[in-house]
Amino acid sequence: MPQLLLINGPNLNLLGNREPGVYGSRTLDDIVDEVQRHAASLGLDLVHFQSNHEGELVTRVQQASREGVSYIVINPAAYTHTSIALRDALLASDIPFIEVHLSNIHARESFRRHSYLSDIASGVIVGFGPSGYRLAIDAAASALGMPRST
Amino acid sequence: MPQLLLINGPNLNLLGNREPGVYGSRTLDDIVDEVQRHAASLGLDLVHFQSNHEGELVTRVQQASREGVSYIVINPAAYTHTSIALRDALLASDIPFIEVHLSNIHARESFRRHSYLSDIASGVIVGFGPSGYRLAIDAAASALGMPRST
Amino acid sequence: MPQLLLINGPNLNLLGNREPGVYGSRTLDDIVDEVQRHAASLGLDLVHFQSNHEGELVTRVQQASREGVSYIVINPAAYTHTSIALRDALLASDIPFIEVHLSNIHARESFRRHSYLSDIASGVIVGFGPSGYRLAIDAAASALGMPRST
Amino acid sequence: MPQLLLINGPNLNLLGNREPGVYGSRTLDDIVDEVQRHAASLGLDLVHFQSNHEGELVTRVQQASREGVSYIVINPAAYTHTSIALRDALLASDIPFIEVHLSNIHARESFRRHSYLSDIASGVIVGFGPSGYRLAIDAAASALGMPRST
Amino acid sequence: MPQLLLINGPNLNLLGNREPGVYGSRTLDDIVDEVQRHAASLGLDLVHFQSNHEGELVTRVQQASREGVSYIVINPAAYTHTSIALRDALLASDIPFIEVHLSNIHARESFRRHSYLSDIASGVIVGFGPSGYRLAIDAAASALGMPRST
Amino acid sequence: MPQLLLINGPNLNLLGNREPGVYGSRTLDDIVDEVQRHAASLGLDLVHFQSNHEGELVTRVQQASREGVSYIVINPAAYTHTSIALRDALLASDIPFIEVHLSNIHARESFRRHSYLSDIASGVIVGFGPSGYRLAIDAAASALGMPRST
Amino acid sequence: MPQLLLINGPNLNLLGNREPGVYGSRTLDDIVDEVQRHAASLGLDLVHFQSNHEGELVTRVQQASREGVSYIVINPAAYTHTSIALRDALLASDIPFIEVHLSNIHARESFRRHSYLSDIASGVIVGFGPSGYRLAIDAAASALGMPRST
Amino acid sequence: MPQLLLINGPNLNLLGNREPGVYGSRTLDDIVDEVQRHAASLGLDLVHFQSNHEGELVTRVQQASREGVSYIVINPAAYTHTSIALRDALLASDIPFIEVHLSNIHARESFRRHSYLSDIASGVIVGFGPSGYRLAIDAAASALGMPRST
Amino acid sequence: MPQLLLINGPNLNLLGNREPGVYGSRTLDDIVDEVQRHAASLGLDLVHFQSNHEGELVTRVQQASREGVSYIVINPAAYTHTSIALRDALLASDIPFIEVHLSNIHARESFRRHSYLSDIASGVIVGFGPSGYRLAIDAAASALGMPRST
Amino acid sequence: MPQLLLINGPNLNLLGNREPGVYGSRTLDDIVDEVQRHAASLGLDLVHFQSNHEGELVTRVQQASREGVSYIVINPAAYTHTSIALRDALLASDIPFIEVHLSNIHARESFRRHSYLSDIASGVIVGFGPSGYRLAIDAAASALGMPRST
Amino acid sequence: MPQLLLINGPNLNLLGNREPGVYGSRTLDDIVDEVQRHAASLGLDLVHFQSNHEGELVTRVQQASREGVSYIVINPAAYTHTSIALRDALLASDIPFIEVHLSNIHARESFRRHSYLSDIASGVIVGFGPSGYRLAIDAAASALGMPRST
Amino acid sequence: MPQLLLINGPNLNLLGNREPGVYGSRTLDDIVDEVQRHAASLGLDLVHFQSNHEGELVTRVQQASREGVSYIVINPAAYTHTSIALRDALLASDIPFIEVHLSNIHARESFRRHSYLSDIASGVIVGFGPSGYRLAIDAAASALGMPRST
Repeated sequence: MPQLLLINGPNLNLLGNREPGVYGSRTLDDIVDEVQRHAASLGLDLVHFQSNHEGELVTRVQQASREGVSYIVINPAAYTHTSIALRDALLASDIPFIEVHLSNIHARESFRRHSYLSDIASGVIVGFGPSGYRLAIDAAASALGMPRST
Repeated sequence: MPQLLLINGPNLNLLGNREPGVYGSRTLDDIVDEVQRHAASLGLDLVHFQSNHEGELVTRVQQASREGVSYIVINPAAYTHTSIALRDALLASDIPFIEVHLSNIHARESFRRHSYLSDIASGVIVGFGPSGYRLAIDAAASALGMPRST
Repeated sequence: MPQLLLINGPNLNLLGNREPGVYGSRTLDDIVDEVQRHAASLGLDLVHFQSNHEGELVTRVQQASREGVSYIVINPAAYTHTSIALRDALLASDIPFIEVHLSNIHARESFRRHSYLSDIASGVIVGFGPSGYRLAIDAAASALGMPRST
Repeated sequence: MPQLLLINGPNLNLLGNREPGVYGSRTLDDIVDEVQRHAASLGLDLVHFQSNHEGELVTRVQQASREGVSYIVINPAAYTHTSIALRDALLASDIPFIEVHLSNIHARESFRRHSYLSDIASGVIVGFGPSGYRLAIDAAASALGMPRST
Repeated sequence: MPQLLLINGPNLNLLGNREPGVYGSRTLDDIVDEVQRHAASLGLDLVHFQSNHEGELVTRVQQASREGVSYIVINPAAYTHTSIALRDALLASDIPFIEVHLSNIHARESFRRHSYLSDIASGVIVGFGPSGYRLAIDAAASALGMPRST
Repeated sequence: MPQLLLINGPNLNLLGNREPGVYGSRTLDDIVDEVQRHAASLGLDLVHFQSNHEGELVTRVQQASREGVSYIVINPAAYTHTSIALRDALLASDIPFIEVHLSNIHARESFRRHSYLSDIASGVIVGFGPSGYRLAIDAAASALGMPRST
Repeated sequence: MPQLLLINGPNLNLLGNREPGVYGSRTLDDIVDEVQRHAASLGLDLVHFQSNHEGELVTRVQQASREGVSYIVINPAAYTHTSIALRDALLASDIPFIEVHLSNIHARESFRRHSYLSDIASGVIVGFGPSGYRLAIDAAASALGMPRST
Repeated sequence: MPQLLLINGPNLNLLGNREPGVYGSRTLDDIVDEVQRHAASLGLDLVHFQSNHEGELVTRVQQASREGVSYIVINPAAYTHTSIALRDALLASDIPFIEVHLSNIHARESFRRHSYLSDIASGVIVGFGPSGYRLAIDAAASALGMPRST
Repeated sequence: MPQLLLINGPNLNLLGNREPGVYGSRTLDDIVDEVQRHAASLGLDLVHFQSNHEGELVTRVQQASREGVSYIVINPAAYTHTSIALRDALLASDIPFIEVHLSNIHARESFRRHSYLSDIASGVIVGFGPSGYRLAIDAAASALGMPRST
Repeated sequence: MPQLLLINGPNLNLLGNREPGVYGSRTLDDIVDEVQRHAASLGLDLVHFQSNHEGELVTRVQQASREGVSYIVINPAAYTHTSIALRDALLASDIPFIEVHLSNIHARESFRRHSYLSDIASGVIVGFGPSGYRLAIDAAASALGMPRST
Repeated sequence: MPQLLLINGPNLNLLGNREPGVYGSRTLDDIVDEVQRHAASLGLDLVHFQSNHEGELVTRVQQASREGVSYIVINPAAYTHTSIALRDALLASDIPFIEVHLSNIHARESFRRHSYLSDIASGVIVGFGPSGYRLAIDAAASALGMPRST
Repeated sequence: MPQLLLINGPNLNLLGNREPGVYGSRTLDDIVDEVQRHAASLGLDLVHFQSNHEGELVTRVQQASREGVSYIVINPAAYTHTSIALRDALLASDIPFIEVHLSNIHARESFRRHSYLSDIASGVIVGFGPSGYRLAIDAAASALGMPRST
């Protein structure tokens, strides 16, 4: 069973508690639960990791390489715009990855328009809230040649 | 049955004939066929329009407003980066829309990194090839409250 | 009777239907009617042309030159900021022209602050809604030496 | 009878004496006389103020607020491009104002293309020489709901 | 008794009358009264000066040097961003000074983010409304070695 | 007999009528006639296309690909600086092309110094008036291995 | 008793040991002691946290939200200029905060002039050394409506 | 006897009192005295004017035009970098002028490297202290065709 | 017989030895021989000069002026982008010149996109390899009114 | 025996496993072993530290100061371009340091061309792979006055 | 007798032959003759050097240092804007120098507004034609404490 | 015996005479002597060349290619930042080279931070004074597979 790694960056542990008008009232746990079930229904084993530490995210990506992870879905949050270390870890891992953002970063502060990851991602999904994770799982499943869940 | 409008911008009529190594060997007709079937399976009626003319794309978006289209999925191709007229048409239409790009525009020439549409889109999907349309349909269906196709 | 050409660019055909809070509830037809009557009261024959196509606007300006049009009043809308072709057509026509914008483009997105036409216009009128056309007609009439309508 | 304040910035006291080829041979006094008669014909009382001092212009705008001025027509000349103090005074006054420039500032040195006032003006009129004041009075009268002079 | 000079720049004479939602309803006179009493309680003699004229502010700073002023607290308002003359006067005076802004200039127009004074100030206090003056007096008193008022 | 396609962009239909001091008094028809005779003398069949529409130029380039055109000589005029769609069409066509400009674009407005086509052209010829087309035909003939016309 | 959180960013644990000519010879412990006593004298309970880790600072801010902290005083040191994660944590916390810098960052390297926090702070205090913390406590107390300590 | 006008901008009234290490210990009066004697020795009548007010400098330049001044020598000090009004006054006066700076402005803050006057000056003299005025008088005398003082 | 001067800048003496895949295997001598024969066939006397020294190129252009050279064809190589001295020499010479580049400089490093010569050239030819010299000779011959070689 | 500290930043723990074509097949442990032996042969005691955490690197540098480390050799990897905290730690430590990069950062993405450390380093060594550490040890030994190992 | 070195950069050997309308009809020899006589009258021995070669100018400055030259007057012409080598030579020589430009470089192409020498010059004289050399000699004489020639 | 070429650019002939505080008191001859002995001890024959002329440096690099030089060590001094011709010569030579700077160019004027050579160098060594040459020889020897000198 191919393994997926879902990584969430800083402050995403607050989902459900923070600005529900913007991000909805579902907690990160709820979302991860649903996303894991969706992955399982597509024949994929999804492991989740969240951290507020740039260094821990770097280390987690390095570990994924050793674990034989097939695909990474990552919402790097603030580190999208500031972490070259995360870029280097993903480059070194050679694991294809999808970058996801819950809100539409193009409609926010101008510094959120630059990503250190997008040009090396296989794809980018922006603005769909937690559904973005589901879309990313679908895309990863399709890239891994999994049969559609219908 | 809610109506979706799928719009493809300049040169996308060449799909399947052009750079198959990059864009795959499926023609636009094939892709649209499949996407329409997928939309139908979600209870959505998808109409397709392609043009190389900025003015025709503007006019088509205006018409959508009069036709009661519920959602637009648009791959504006080159006009992403140069057409304020298309932005204005979408702004005026008040129809939510998703911006799709087949290739990863962040990994190409620097002028492809700016979009006149992203900040007013409900979401953006980049880099998944023709599967991007399918993901966009799923996202639109979800936003329109359609029951999942499973 | 000197001839005036009033040109309206992309999406201005939507006037009256679109964002009435911003642009008022009068349609383009209503506005053109009134502006034509006003021109006539000043001894001027006003012809109107609207298009969403950059190429048609270019061609229309070229034709004006052959028709002996004395003055052009143009609201280039989105093409203000993106069309060098329109600039070239106006330069080639040698017909003096006034650039009009209904809304205050200086108070909107930063890309609307640059115009490819302003530096070759005889004058620019910004922010007065449909009254801007009337002011432009007055200015053109005055430049053509027409007696005041009082 | 609603009151209008016409403000002219630095060096405009030289009108008629300076570069007549560009600005015409009419003095500021002549122009103000005519503009006042035009305002009166529209039922408006126009007061005029000119100064070369940024501080005096700021103070005059502040005073307008206490006097119940209904509309300001201002040609800020060089201070257009350098005075944030004048912007602040106009912002604080809450009186709607129209920015007028006699020459086409878009066709001159690049530093004249930026205005500290345009984005907070109700409208901007550029390039019509002294007629620009007349057009601004008409626009102000129309905004104040005065009956047309015909 | 050491002397403090409090300088307020253009439009600050409007305090209390202008945008009370933002700046509060207290007039400049009220504020200065309170600040003077506070200074006195710390053993400091505070003199106040307000002007809308860049030149008068420059001259007042020059005079402070001759009067033996020990510290300047200055809210340069709009001249913060445009006056090199004021910078030069402060540099020449050799009197330490504190720059105060009532509103948070970092949260406003981008041109308010640059100050010609901050890099030569002994300190900068931003965003606390009229309380900012009190904090600046405290800081000046502390720098002058005055015993705390407790 | 190898086929050449000569494409002229917006406003070039005005040649001969517009600014003869700059562009000479020969009409586009005259120029094309001569250029076609020159091409024929080199054993090449030259087809000509002019349009003011970006979309038509895109479509014409796409068609060239299907027709087996061997070389394109293109004067994109204003679209040089604004059309990514034309770039994409030329990229997709895989037909080598030469970019020609009649006037010296480096000596004109700064926005004419950037071309969306030059970096993918096989060569660029600037500033020789209508003779530029002849030089481009010569270069294309040489690249196609045609014997010199001597 | 309302709770204040004082946060110090990277390298501030070195205070007293590092560049005493610039930062004074008092250690962070000394300073915090005094600041806590000052807070207590104003009826405020001040908790202190220092870390060299961006992630720990983010996590501490998140925790403050759960603890019902009323106000944050933060000297983000180097992370001022590089941490969007800290900005997001403060935004999400909804706790008002004051940004403090000991040295005058406007007089140092140009990269220290940009802060990711200032525009969302309630106020900013720069350049007063450790006294800046005291001033910030005073400002926070005043904002929380605490009676003055006199 | 041809008339010269020597203008000194803001803070130059402090010469001799301010930073003697940089500007020398001679007061502005001393310097003007010597410069006037030097001018007289060349057959020129030199009038001097100093002001801290931008508006007064503008007005003085306007007056020069009416008085028949033959040449202006101006040290605009801080207004060099911020006053378009002074530029406009000098442009309108049509009197040739020389721009003088006592210190080497190229070796100071970067904002002192731009002058709003240099491109319309007949010459610029930088860095020679008060001797710069003498050199400027010599240059003006030479331009006015005065016989050399030898 | 009108004289042409062909100038080649630094490193062009290496032609034929360097990167034959890019520049072909013909040496500079071979190329110059052929170009001279071609010039002769058009009734033109072509002299050639190559140097790696900016100063020698400047001096050679100066000399051309004294020799009565009618046209210069110059491939300035690296000095295209760095030599204002060469620009000044060509400006001073008043001899019309054509700028030639063998490779497509628009497709290389970004610093090769700026030329200090193009805006004062009569024409520019880029990307045709050694054939570019032949095209330039043809263009010069045509500008000098030489009969075509056919 | 003088102590050297060798610090390696994020992702350098992957050496030998990652992109062996670029970085060689030797692991970080192998490299450190050799470098330590080389240091010992020069009479230097080398301690090594690697971390993916910015905060840990900061803390390690702080500790070096307390341990009396004589010289630091640091390969900050991605933090070179993003960490002001590391700069501040090195500034505060007052220990001279050498910045080393294995690959040629000038030949990679443009964001790798800026370093927050280079201007305060005693030297920088770029592009020599693991040999760069050896060169840095030699340079440090020489700066510390150690006798050459020959 | 103190020695002065007058250095003229590229293309200045053309003076008198080139653009007499701009630079006058006097040759460089004439000008140098007069300047030498003027220097002699002030008790100074002036040596002149002109070259079109950057390297020769660098070498000449180096030699001046060995010869005990007291002051350099240099018109670096085009190398003003492109030669860091000349800057380094002047820095190393430790001889004070004056930068002279005959024409007003501030009124020409924008690339002429930057000088690599001005910030290290003792003074700069711009726009006075050949008289600029005379003024520079006067300034140098004054700096060397020579008695005035009267 | 493999040959090394050591190239020193402009003003490096002054070493030992110029700013001994910065560059030390050893002359270029001394340094070259020692470096040659060091090279010899590693089995390498080192030839040295210094010039102040860009053209001579270009020519010397070209010659190296014909002589079979194995490695170049170059300190391009000022030409680092201005010479594309030198870059082209090194590119054409296909000889690997190391760029050396004696002082830390990152700590000097901002224009010294850009090098036209670094991205095509095999390595860069900055800030170690004359020892930098020795380090570069070591690195070259290692790259050439020479046995270590121990």
